[in-house]
Amino acid sequence: MAKKRKPRRKRRTRAATRTAPGTAPGTVVMDPGAPRPVITVMAFRPDKLVEQTISDPRALRDYTQRWPITWVNVNGLGDERTIRTIAESFDLHPLVLEDVVHTHQRPKLEEYPDQLFLVARMPQLEDVFRTEQLSLFVGPNYVVTFQERPGDCFEPVRKRIREGVRTRLLQADYLAYALIDAIVDSYFPALETFGERLEILEEEIQHKPTAEVLRRIHDLRHDLLALRRSIWPARDILNSLVRDPIPLISDSTRTYLRDCYDHAVRIIDLVETYRELSGGLIELYQSAVGHRMNEIMKVLTVIATIFIPLTFVAGIYGMNFNTQSSPWNMPELDWYWGYPLTLAVMALIVGGMIVYFRRKGWIGG
Amino acid sequence: MAKKRKPRRKRRTRAATRTAPGTAPGTVVMDPGAPRPVITVMAFRPDKLVEQTISDPRALRDYTQRWPITWVNVNGLGDERTIRTIAESFDLHPLVLEDVVHTHQRPKLEEYPDQLFLVARMPQLEDVFRTEQLSLFVGPNYVVTFQERPGDCFEPVRKRIREGVRTRLLQADYLAYALIDAIVDSYFPALETFGERLEILEEEIQHKPTAEVLRRIHDLRHDLLALRRSIWPARDILNSLVRDPIPLISDSTRTYLRDCYDHAVRIIDLVETYRELSGGLIELYQSAVGHRMNEIMKVLTVIATIFIPLTFVAGIYGMNFNTQSSPWNMPELDWYWGYPLTLAVMALIVGGMIVYFRRKGWIGG
Amino acid sequence: MAKKRKPRRKRRTRAATRTAPGTAPGTVVMDPGAPRPVITVMAFRPDKLVEQTISDPRALRDYTQRWPITWVNVNGLGDERTIRTIAESFDLHPLVLEDVVHTHQRPKLEEYPDQLFLVARMPQLEDVFRTEQLSLFVGPNYVVTFQERPGDCFEPVRKRIREGVRTRLLQADYLAYALIDAIVDSYFPALETFGERLEILEEEIQHKPTAEVLRRIHDLRHDLLALRRSIWPARDILNSLVRDPIPLISDSTRTYLRDCYDHAVRIIDLVETYRELSGGLIELYQSAVGHRMNEIMKVLTVIATIFIPLTFVAGIYGMNFNTQSSPWNMPELDWYWGYPLTLAVMALIVGGMIVYFRRKGWIGG
Amino acid sequence: MAKKRKPRRKRRTRAATRTAPGTAPGTVVMDPGAPRPVITVMAFRPDKLVEQTISDPRALRDYTQRWPITWVNVNGLGDERTIRTIAESFDLHPLVLEDVVHTHQRPKLEEYPDQLFLVARMPQLEDVFRTEQLSLFVGPNYVVTFQERPGDCFEPVRKRIREGVRTRLLQADYLAYALIDAIVDSYFPALETFGERLEILEEEIQHKPTAEVLRRIHDLRHDLLALRRSIWPARDILNSLVRDPIPLISDSTRTYLRDCYDHAVRIIDLVETYRELSGGLIELYQSAVGHRMNEIMKVLTVIATIFIPLTFVAGIYGMNFNTQSSPWNMPELDWYWGYPLTLAVMALIVGGMIVYFRRKGWIGG
Amino acid sequence: MAKKRKPRRKRRTRAATRTAPGTAPGTVVMDPGAPRPVITVMAFRPDKLVEQTISDPRALRDYTQRWPITWVNVNGLGDERTIRTIAESFDLHPLVLEDVVHTHQRPKLEEYPDQLFLVARMPQLEDVFRTEQLSLFVGPNYVVTFQERPGDCFEPVRKRIREGVRTRLLQADYLAYALIDAIVDSYFPALETFGERLEILEEEIQHKPTAEVLRRIHDLRHDLLALRRSIWPARDILNSLVRDPIPLISDSTRTYLRDCYDHAVRIIDLVETYRELSGGLIELYQSAVGHRMNEIMKVLTVIATIFIPLTFVAGIYGMNFNTQSSPWNMPELDWYWGYPLTLAVMALIVGGMIVYFRRKGWIGG
Repeated sequence: MAKKRKPRRKRRTRAATRTAPGTAPGTVVMDPGAPRPVITVMAFRPDKLVEQTISDPRALRDYTQRWPITWVNVNGLGDERTIRTIAESFDLHPLVLEDVVHTHQRPKLEEYPDQLFLVARMPQLEDVFRTEQLSLFVGPNYVVTFQERPGDCFEPVRKRIREGVRTRLLQADYLAYALIDAIVDSYFPALETFGERLEILEEEIQHKPTAEVLRRIHDLRHDLLALRRSIWPARDILNSLVRDPIPLISDSTRTYLRDCYDHAVRIIDLVETYRELSGGLIELYQSAVGHRMNEIMKVLTVIATIFIPLTFVAGIYGMNFNTQSSPWNMPELDWYWGYPLTLAVMALIVGGMIVYFRRKGWIGG
Repeated sequence: MAKKRKPRRKRRTRAATRTAPGTAPGTVVMDPGAPRPVITVMAFRPDKLVEQTISDPRALRDYTQRWPITWVNVNGLGDERTIRTIAESFDLHPLVLEDVVHTHQRPKLEEYPDQLFLVARMPQLEDVFRTEQLSLFVGPNYVVTFQERPGDCFEPVRKRIREGVRTRLLQADYLAYALIDAIVDSYFPALETFGERLEILEEEIQHKPTAEVLRRIHDLRHDLLALRRSIWPARDILNSLVRDPIPLISDSTRTYLRDCYDHAVRIIDLVETYRELSGGLIELYQSAVGHRMNEIMKVLTVIATIFIPLTFVAGIYGMNFNTQSSPWNMPELDWYWGYPLTLAVMALIVGGMIVYFRRKGWIGG
Repeated sequence: MAKKRKPRRKRRTRAATRTAPGTAPGTVVMDPGAPRPVITVMAFRPDKLVEQTISDPRALRDYTQRWPITWVNVNGLGDERTIRTIAESFDLHPLVLEDVVHTHQRPKLEEYPDQLFLVARMPQLEDVFRTEQLSLFVGPNYVVTFQERPGDCFEPVRKRIREGVRTRLLQADYLAYALIDAIVDSYFPALETFGERLEILEEEIQHKPTAEVLRRIHDLRHDLLALRRSIWPARDILNSLVRDPIPLISDSTRTYLRDCYDHAVRIIDLVETYRELSGGLIELYQSAVGHRMNEIMKVLTVIATIFIPLTFVAGIYGMNFNTQSSPWNMPELDWYWGYPLTLAVMALIVGGMIVYFRRKGWIGG
Repeated sequence: MAKKRKPRRKRRTRAATRTAPGTAPGTVVMDPGAPRPVITVMAFRPDKLVEQTISDPRALRDYTQRWPITWVNVNGLGDERTIRTIAESFDLHPLVLEDVVHTHQRPKLEEYPDQLFLVARMPQLEDVFRTEQLSLFVGPNYVVTFQERPGDCFEPVRKRIREGVRTRLLQADYLAYALIDAIVDSYFPALETFGERLEILEEEIQHKPTAEVLRRIHDLRHDLLALRRSIWPARDILNSLVRDPIPLISDSTRTYLRDCYDHAVRIIDLVETYRELSGGLIELYQSAVGHRMNEIMKVLTVIATIFIPLTFVAGIYGMNFNTQSSPWNMPELDWYWGYPLTLAVMALIVGGMIVYFRRKGWIGG
Repeated sequence: MAKKRKPRRKRRTRAATRTAPGTAPGTVVMDPGAPRPVITVMAFRPDKLVEQTISDPRALRDYTQRWPITWVNVNGLGDERTIRTIAESFDLHPLVLEDVVHTHQRPKLEEYPDQLFLVARMPQLEDVFRTEQLSLFVGPNYVVTFQERPGDCFEPVRKRIREGVRTRLLQADYLAYALIDAIVDSYFPALETFGERLEILEEEIQHKPTAEVLRRIHDLRHDLLALRRSIWPARDILNSLVRDPIPLISDSTRTYLRDCYDHAVRIIDLVETYRELSGGLIELYQSAVGHRMNEIMKVLTVIATIFIPLTFVAGIYGMNFNTQSSPWNMPELDWYWGYPLTLAVMALIVGGMIVYFRRKGWIGG
């Protein structure tokens, strides 16, 4: 039970970490439990790559000035001063900083004079479905990403940079695309676990439709809602990146983003299908429970209707009418074949019942 | 029960306080029970602040002429003359005045030559979810707000003004934004109580699925409907403030309003999620009730099907066939081991039943 | 029952009074049971008012020529010649006349060169929700209204005209607005009765969830559907009056119509809320019925499971094994404490059962 | 049962008569069972009318050349050559011919250089709701209609032509309008039968909620779906005829078509209402069935709970404890008032039970 | 059971074969189990046709240079090099190649400078509904199609080419249309099997509403969802082919595509109808199960309520009150007609019960 309770707690907190209503916008209230930021820089040109973890964010301005392309990744948002310094190095809008730190934003896209600001949500495959906020800034020659925690789905991108497949990655918009694409694609494994959960549930419904199973369908639907809330707006953002005339996005990157958009649409398709299927599971569950109920009722009915008449017959010959006072008073009791005849009548009743129940399909095949 | 009845009463009155159909527009019919208006003025410039409660509304014109920015807040709408005088001081449209006083308006936005009129609804966290109407006028150098009752969510804004963080607040549109933002953010705590109510209900369904619980789910859904009705149009208004070319709104304020719009969208997201979850709760409830029913049926079936055959056997040997009149008449009664054998047969029947029920999963684990 | 049947009959006739398929358009088929028309004229200028019931519709042309504004109201559509003469006096399009007489039109708006034709539906608060068709023509200096029956919601407008508050009413478009506003506002009392019906039903569900209650929820939903069908198109009409460039509507009247539109939106909001609530009532009803079922089952189960074992025990000692033929044959019957012991055993069984049922929550609090 | 099966068979064939996938477009595959075409011509000018059934379709060209307006109606599509000859006489597009012959088209509208092609579906009031396809071509001075079978709703139009009310009918577009109007209006009687079916079902649900009734609700919904599928696209076509700039349609006819469009909208309104009502019927049905179940359970519970304790009491005094071996062994059996007292106790139990059940509302009013 | 399990496994894999998240776009990961490609070329001019299966894809360029129109069909995607070579021969965009090979794309349409790329899904009528991806490229004088497996619905098109009905097929866009039309039309037989499955299920529900039936309804809905997911986007594509100004599509072909679009709309209509019907089946199923339950309950109730009172009466006269100790102690036992009277009373009880149950409609007709 304790294991079940935990995720629910977490859910509640989703709406919780926010600035108090009415405080000045741009106010950054840090979550005291957030991990301290770790800044990793990848700056490269076609023939060279620098990959470093730096501790002083003031060094960042250097990179953007000296390298054709710089990717700054920040893991953890637990120190206001560090975050502020990074923000200043890239001239980030103060309002936006608030969105970076309060990690319950819906995915969104905001255009600034020569910067794009994107919020995306990365699915996390723990026992409960959760998403981590990724804030991504694209400038003319840099990409800055903020993550809530260490651990992400960008390893393959890093590998491509390290291995020198960099030609296209030298453009900031293409690099941003590569990261977005990695995020979108990371939804597929998440969806697969959903598919598996659906299948397991379907099997369990058939074998053991306990209240626990319904509870888990409920949880699954809860998670699908969360998943949907993070992928729907993502699709809109991708659509807008593909169609709107954003100067920072080149036409060739747009072609790639269109592909990415197609993936988002496919994910939504699957999510909606899973939602419908989970609705069908509830029907299956209710029918399985109803089926059990019917089976119980059938056993009760069969046993009761067979034995109740028999008991009645036995009751008749248990009466104490005085056979002496009248020849009409239960003469059967004194018959030679009285008892065997009575048993035979009972056997007949049982036989008739069994034939009747068989016809109704309550007994046997 | 009395406690439950009260909120329902209140609900009904929602549609009730209105002008009689067919009366001239602009007719102001006061709610006789409304509290009398209390007028508070905050007028300030970068270096100075006047904060006063005034009793004569004719003094208001003075402030707007002498100060760069004036915020007039009116708590209570119970006196027609006062309201009218305030309206005249700021040249409010007569039709609009009707909307201010009849406090069941949907959130809406109306543009007048050099005035914006906004109706918003502030959530109130009593035992039943209710909203209070806020009517807000923005002019070139003033903001006028009308509230139904004392008590609001603007304290942090007042504090910022008092503490001198006023630079941006000197613009009327920014001041209006600050107030709207405070209102939108005040929906989050309301949503949190909804989240808590959902969780409590979920737990109670599992432990005690009484009719009362369903009743409370019903109430919760009722409240979510009310919440939704007040936030959906608010979102549309914010969208229109952000996108439409309204001269009174400066571009820099628009950026802040966009942030506010994002919050409204997130609130709607949560409301819709809660609505879906509450629908799921009803399913959980019905399944919990069905589960109880099954359990009851199982106990009945187990007890009945075990004892009915036993009683029949006992009934057989309770028959009064005359053992003297024939060797076939119940010779068992005279057997040496007759009684113990009968008991043994009964024990066998019970054992068989128990094994059968265990296999069916009706008894034990 | 007879009372219930009647409204249903009426419902069916809704689709019934129409021209036979294929007849020429503009053919006017009178409902033979319709009341005969009564024509009332209100013609006025700022300082003077003539209010008359006239019998000869040919006199109408006079009024429009001599007075700045004329409002002709026709109650009852039962005489073709009269209606035709009125139509000719105001140059009404022949097709439109058909719509006036066949009173099952959806609300709609049609523009003619210098005439507006509007169909609205006025709610009627009888035991069953019904609407009456109002056909309204607006010309440069006249308004003509056709009603199915005497009795309307225009008394307050007439009073304003009589009392001399006429300045704005001298414009035909404003007069039309005043009438439309009266109709829209007359939906609010109708909605209140719906709110009351919902509350009464909710209470009855809790105390006596009979099939009759469900039947009435069904009727309520039926009525809400009818209400919705008449208010939704009305909203669209109002929207089009506010936004479309219709020459007959002045800009100042448009401002008032916007207010009227807001009311229509609020009505729709309430109708949708009521629809959702009535859906919730069905859930409450079903749960209340299920609750009763459970209670019945519980009583049956408690009684049966307590007494079935006891009866079995009694059955045992009702057996007639011959205690003489063996010391093992029911020696209990001859024990000194046999009977009291048996009773004690029975009492123990009962006690155990009661404890078990209490734990299950089937008995007591 | 056989009667029920038939309509279902028919349903399935709906999707069946089509060209094999992949065959060249324009291929006309005749349904071998279709009736042979009967060609009727009505050609007229203001003062003269020719109405003939012709056997050789090659004569058709003559009419269009000599008369200002010609209406050719073809009943039955069972002969390819005839259909092809007619098509050639009026220069019909080959693709369109395929649509004429494969009579499972959705209603649609296609514009050709100087021809309009319209597919409509005419409702047929047999025991199962079915529609017949009407293909209609409008040219500058002719209208050609193809029907699947004899029997249509155009008699009133023919009558008007015969009776000389022809002025407007001399225009091909107006004639087409008259035919379309006749079709649209023929939906109203169909809707009335739906209304009646709903009412009959509602009554039967209350008196005899058999599985058969649910089956018929299911059939009704099936028919409503079919009706809806034929009227929805019809509305879109009418809308497009009213709004799109189609040269063949004159402005005056457009006014009439707008009226026709209104009717289509009203039909859709009714269909949607009937759909909602039929959904409500299922709820009523389920509640009626549940009600019956409760009633059955109540009777069982009342009888069982009254007699089970009584039988137990009787069982007690049926025990054979030896009253001789101890004064504690059932001394009641020897009491003077033993038997009457026992009966009195039983009567008390019955009385208590009845009071309890009355309070619960299970017995009586 | 094993047969049932298999399709479910397959379903899961739908989301599975994809590139790992984050890999470079355009990366082609072959499904190792895919069949090796078989390339068939049909190149023709009005008077001549070459139809060949070629093994070296480098030969393809030749055909397009020498023939006015070439159709290359590739069955199987199991060899990367072959696919790449084909792609290069026709200058296919690298990103697109990825879509060809990862055969879980949604239907889509992409325009390239002088190429159209189309993904469609062909229904496959195995025991479980599945679709095969068809990737189709249209260039100025060629059409290239990629299929997952051998076996398609293009035979009639090939036949038309072979038989010399080629005039229109000489245009690439018309050839593409012919293929698309064949695919769209191949949905109709699929829909027919759905119709049959619905009918079979409907009949089984009435005769044997087992849990297995519900399971199959669930599977049917699953398949309808899959069907819907492949036909909805297809309709959008066809719409865009008909309306958008795509240079590669000639106006005459557009006319044919419009016809094809109509078919797609009709398919969607049917799918939606089937979805609604399958929803209705679940209702029918639940009602059938409920009906069975009622029947079981009725039998139990009838038997129990008839025999329980009788058994009680028998129990009464089974009591051992001492008739000697008092004239009030069960004098009936010594009556001359005691036993027959008792039996008569029992018969009366039975008769009364039967009359009561008949009235309730629980017994007989």
